[in-house]
Amino acid sequence: MATRIVEPEAGPRSKRAAILAAAVDCFGETGFEATKWSTVAERVGIGQTALYHYFESKTHCLLTIMRLELQRSHDKFTEATEGVEDPTEALRAAVRAAYDVSEQEVLQMRILHNHMDLLSGTRKSKREEAERVEARKLVQLVERNWTNLLVRGMSMGAFPLRDAQLLGSGVLGLIVSVWRWYRPSGPTPLSEISELIEGACVRMVAT
Amino acid sequence: MATRIVEPEAGPRSKRAAILAAAVDCFGETGFEATKWSTVAERVGIGQTALYHYFESKTHCLLTIMRLELQRSHDKFTEATEGVEDPTEALRAAVRAAYDVSEQEVLQMRILHNHMDLLSGTRKSKREEAERVEARKLVQLVERNWTNLLVRGMSMGAFPLRDAQLLGSGVLGLIVSVWRWYRPSGPTPLSEISELIEGACVRMVAT
Repeated sequence: MATRIVEPEAGPRSKRAAILAAAVDCFGETGFEATKWSTVAERVGIGQTALYHYFESKTHCLLTIMRLELQRSHDKFTEATEGVEDPTEALRAAVRAAYDVSEQEVLQMRILHNHMDLLSGTRKSKREEAERVEARKLVQLVERNWTNLLVRGMSMGAFPLRDAQLLGSGVLGLIVSVWRWYRPSGPTPLSEISELIEGACVRMVAT
Repeated sequence: MATRIVEPEAGPRSKRAAILAAAVDCFGETGFEATKWSTVAERVGIGQTALYHYFESKTHCLLTIMRLELQRSHDKFTEATEGVEDPTEALRAAVRAAYDVSEQEVLQMRILHNHMDLLSGTRKSKREEAERVEARKLVQLVERNWTNLLVRGMSMGAFPLRDAQLLGSGVLGLIVSVWRWYRPSGPTPLSEISELIEGACVRMVAT
């Protein structure tokens, strides 16, 4: 493993990415609490001192994973709905995009939604707090994406008038609830789940 | 505070209830991680040794709160739907029952849903593990309640045929997602939320 540390081409960035990937595996499969911070270092093949250079704590790393996952969700939503004129089609595209994820991203979503309560309380550490504040902003951005999609559909007469913010957070809540129980090894393929939730969201919003 | 400890009428049960109530306040408002176990003892007015007599750890207490809340949810569902023949009416009654909660129960739901991942990994402590196993059984029971309600409606022709288990966990996921963000001090009263979600669930299932 030592060779990986001294690889001349491995700049700080590549090590950071490797740490994040290892942490996603550990937190997603073993759970955050049950994962020893030293296990992440071992997986990457670096010492604990090197690990602390990138993340000052296990929580700092968790908050970074959450912030990155929220950014990815936001970007994916934007990409999927951009230029889709028909509101129902945009809603369908947004739901499908939410489930168009890799196995690594499934773990990231699970980690994110298992630790959302971490975003509500101020952190004492500056670096942790910076990640938390960014993540909070992204949560609001993602919520606004869904609300705006519903508002647009309502103003165009495609969706009946309802409390768009409340209904939007319901749609989002329904979509992300899947990450609590979904396992790639489980009996139901994600494509089937995606299709059922897509239909449920359209009925919730457009009927 | 000392008088509370030596009250002759305060049997072991009353102290346990007081500890649970104090822990619900602390975990629900400050968060589980941020709450010091000693703060719970102080609130109840007992020493830490007495506290450990009832709960061997903060996690043991958390798991107990979760198990009790799941039992309450199950009982409430049963009570609300029993004898309601029409499946759509039963669905409406079940959703309304889910939001017919006290402020204390709001905190209990928030605590439960913020720590659901705790139920997936085996605990080393015997007493923690016993609570975890009971809570897991109750999670399955609650999920089955919703699936069975949907299966009955589908078999009676009141709901279109769909994957009842998948749709049932969607309905449940939508309902409980509210506990993530709902605050009694917030701008939207729970009655309004309940009404919107009730309508959304009926459209999801019966349309």
